[in-house]
Amino acid sequence: MTGGGAKAYTLAEIVARFGGEILGDPRTCVAQIATLERARPDTIAFLANQRYLQQLKATRAGAVIVGPAMRDATALPRIVCDNPYAYFARVSGFINPPRPPVPGAHQTAVVDDSAEVGGNVQVGPFVVIGRNARIGAGSVIGAGCVVGERSVVGPDARLYGNVTIYDDCVIGDRVILHSGVVIGADGFGIAMDADRWIKVPQIGRVVIGDDVEIGANTTVDRGAIDDTVIEDGVKLDNQVQIAHNVRIGAHTAIAGCAGIAGSSRVGRYCRIGGASGIAGHLTITDNVEISAHTLITKSIEKPGTYTGAYPFEANRDWRHNAAQLRHLAELAERVRALEKQLAAQKRSRS
Amino acid sequence: MTGGGAKAYTLAEIVARFGGEILGDPRTCVAQIATLERARPDTIAFLANQRYLQQLKATRAGAVIVGPAMRDATALPRIVCDNPYAYFARVSGFINPPRPPVPGAHQTAVVDDSAEVGGNVQVGPFVVIGRNARIGAGSVIGAGCVVGERSVVGPDARLYGNVTIYDDCVIGDRVILHSGVVIGADGFGIAMDADRWIKVPQIGRVVIGDDVEIGANTTVDRGAIDDTVIEDGVKLDNQVQIAHNVRIGAHTAIAGCAGIAGSSRVGRYCRIGGASGIAGHLTITDNVEISAHTLITKSIEKPGTYTGAYPFEANRDWRHNAAQLRHLAELAERVRALEKQLAAQKRSRS
Amino acid sequence: MTGGGAKAYTLAEIVARFGGEILGDPRTCVAQIATLERARPDTIAFLANQRYLQQLKATRAGAVIVGPAMRDATALPRIVCDNPYAYFARVSGFINPPRPPVPGAHQTAVVDDSAEVGGNVQVGPFVVIGRNARIGAGSVIGAGCVVGERSVVGPDARLYGNVTIYDDCVIGDRVILHSGVVIGADGFGIAMDADRWIKVPQIGRVVIGDDVEIGANTTVDRGAIDDTVIEDGVKLDNQVQIAHNVRIGAHTAIAGCAGIAGSSRVGRYCRIGGASGIAGHLTITDNVEISAHTLITKSIEKPGTYTGAYPFEANRDWRHNAAQLRHLAELAERVRALEKQLAAQKRSRS
Repeated sequence: MTGGGAKAYTLAEIVARFGGEILGDPRTCVAQIATLERARPDTIAFLANQRYLQQLKATRAGAVIVGPAMRDATALPRIVCDNPYAYFARVSGFINPPRPPVPGAHQTAVVDDSAEVGGNVQVGPFVVIGRNARIGAGSVIGAGCVVGERSVVGPDARLYGNVTIYDDCVIGDRVILHSGVVIGADGFGIAMDADRWIKVPQIGRVVIGDDVEIGANTTVDRGAIDDTVIEDGVKLDNQVQIAHNVRIGAHTAIAGCAGIAGSSRVGRYCRIGGASGIAGHLTITDNVEISAHTLITKSIEKPGTYTGAYPFEANRDWRHNAAQLRHLAELAERVRALEKQLAAQKRSRS
Repeated sequence: MTGGGAKAYTLAEIVARFGGEILGDPRTCVAQIATLERARPDTIAFLANQRYLQQLKATRAGAVIVGPAMRDATALPRIVCDNPYAYFARVSGFINPPRPPVPGAHQTAVVDDSAEVGGNVQVGPFVVIGRNARIGAGSVIGAGCVVGERSVVGPDARLYGNVTIYDDCVIGDRVILHSGVVIGADGFGIAMDADRWIKVPQIGRVVIGDDVEIGANTTVDRGAIDDTVIEDGVKLDNQVQIAHNVRIGAHTAIAGCAGIAGSSRVGRYCRIGGASGIAGHLTITDNVEISAHTLITKSIEKPGTYTGAYPFEANRDWRHNAAQLRHLAELAERVRALEKQLAAQKRSRS
Repeated sequence: MTGGGAKAYTLAEIVARFGGEILGDPRTCVAQIATLERARPDTIAFLANQRYLQQLKATRAGAVIVGPAMRDATALPRIVCDNPYAYFARVSGFINPPRPPVPGAHQTAVVDDSAEVGGNVQVGPFVVIGRNARIGAGSVIGAGCVVGERSVVGPDARLYGNVTIYDDCVIGDRVILHSGVVIGADGFGIAMDADRWIKVPQIGRVVIGDDVEIGANTTVDRGAIDDTVIEDGVKLDNQVQIAHNVRIGAHTAIAGCAGIAGSSRVGRYCRIGGASGIAGHLTITDNVEISAHTLITKSIEKPGTYTGAYPFEANRDWRHNAAQLRHLAELAERVRALEKQLAAQKRSRS
């Protein structure tokens, strides 16, 4: 665990700020959050899943955050609240705030004279900010980042080291881009003509809303003609690929290594599993959950959970079973033949 | 949509350059391309897929590009041609040419004295060009790129920001490498000995032909002993992984997140779907299409389309059906037993 | 093949260093390793797989490395040893040693005054080494790398260009990180509350053991509270994603594009196939092999090989067979009904 926790807070202070009910001594002091398993007496842990009830019994935490059903599951000082995980997230954010920007541009940074950099912005070493780009107040641009010409980064954004933003992109307020993210590279637009691929110029932009976080090495391509759009509050994990002209609805979360093919539209509040895929030109409605390793090949109009992963098994069993897959249509045919035969027997007997 | 379109062209000018037949007023002026859906009167749109016929009826475009079958599907000024999508690509490339290089090396760039940089080359800030490297005339090397020692980049290439090329690689003419691309990292060569992995030095190179485009964060590993080869005209989308000693045949296109394992050879004019995989040491002939999320585990000798993706469904249905997969061999056995039983009945009755 | 091979070695010298038995002239000189197929007379090749026996017959190599069973399969000068591939790896490493560091920091590098940089360290152009970071003796930090505050890189490590290490991470001795690697980005920790995602601060670290190699554009996220741990001798290929709080056991190898979800623990000496996935919060015991494109959704307690990839076939066949998958539970039901019917017939007849 990294530093942090220099200052300590009483449960009373925490509840004054975030609500909830204290059971036990409200003067109990905590200086950091912890897992139940590794907690020390000066930390506060949480129980969000009954699976870890045993760990609650054994924890050395000074205090815990629990839901209403668990209010009596421990004798430790505790905060009872409706959503212990979200409560814990808030407490952790309070104890471990992001480091404020150290205003100013590093002397090595290359910031074009025409670029507008707001107040209180930190620009790291070897950053390049292109012509007519704009960086909003309070943002941090990490070492080695490149912000293309005319691109806009909203206030209070945070770009970690080695992020690349192409020209003409728009990044909202409070957006977090992790290292290796590439925003605005050309979409995969090619047309076959006379046995050669011709490049289709990608003249759309990437437009990213507010409060979006994008994980390391994720790529979001610019639109072919119109824009690629990531709406407010979207969370993308690492190594996600968003193709040209995709639109991701607000507050949708996409896990690592997933890929959304060109021109597909994903609704709001969707949860897209790791390494899953959505084929091109589809529409996924709001509140859809897609399981890991699932490929979506048709539009989805009904909220719900959708799955298409092959269930793993011991290789020897898999070999026997998977071999039959190639005969499945034939097997179904044979069952139909048997049914007919038996039906015919029955008729002939009656 | 990004800037562009300052200049306007008549349909007559366009047809003089690219062929095709004009229906309607040849003096119709267009300044930019557009989608049917969002076109304005000063733009030209295209119809390549009958699916969008409804949009053709409603478009506000000043002109459209259509195929012979659609020549009378609109009253708008139009260009009739055999391949509207390719024609559109050419028109867009004409209206939106790549920005020419701004010759010269940025003062911060570190270009080794022994490196040869051709005429009219643009070298961005914080670029590193190693000993005895060569950059062909007219190329653009974006900010933060690293070109290793003795590596060669052909003329008129374009490396966007933060591309890394290791030592001793060869990149052809007019190649486009998008941000985050890594060319020439060590292949995954390890040998187990006495419970420890020993590294196998990767002493081959990466050799990339002409007119290749490689998407953001794609990786192409150097060969273990001989070279990894990407032939002319290959197009790789984002986050593709090409392992050591692979050879990709000319004009093959590989969609995002696909991976080709070591020493496999992919033919010419193949189309490899997103997140698909080709296992190691295989040979795929020319003109093979591999569907998204498909794993190829045997060599393919016959052109055609190959698929192996699990069809998705509602999670509840998937759970019922997928559970049976683990009993599929047994189910086939039971069907065989039933068939025998019925055949025996038949024999005994006759 | 890249340079190398300036110096030549006799088989006698090689065997004196690495063991094995020489058959043929021990004074045979070799200057480089090669594949059987492309070997020249001044190179040594190897046969590790009987599949290439034909190539052994035809090779122009000056000498070969073979196993005991193949000792008489060629008349060429040869070294007989138990593990030809590992032996070859050692010989190649001997002939092609990594280039030693060129000590000193490039004048453009930004190394914080409080950072400790050991002796004989090479720091490339545009490198950033943060406050209180430590770089062990003999390491090479490639161009454009960023080493965060308080992070530690062990001695004799090698970071290729454009690697990013966040704050507070620990990298062991002799570790190799390829370009585009991101160590320590925030894990995907978000809590839904009142229709908004709240960020869970990621305050754990990444701790990487000794002799680990990590491929290009691979990402290893920092822990949410406790650490993400990669034990000694682990080898990760390109574009692998390791989520927060994962632990990878010593000497496990993970092929390209695989993803390990949060808090899962993978044992020692496992081999994880390309583009495979392990869901979150699972435990995989030692010596488990997971096939390519397989998703593991339950903990594995028994060593062995596990598979869950859909077998590919011609698209037309796939369409017929895959369509039946959605009726598989029903098909099983129908077979059961047939069995019952036949059993009833039998009873009524007896």
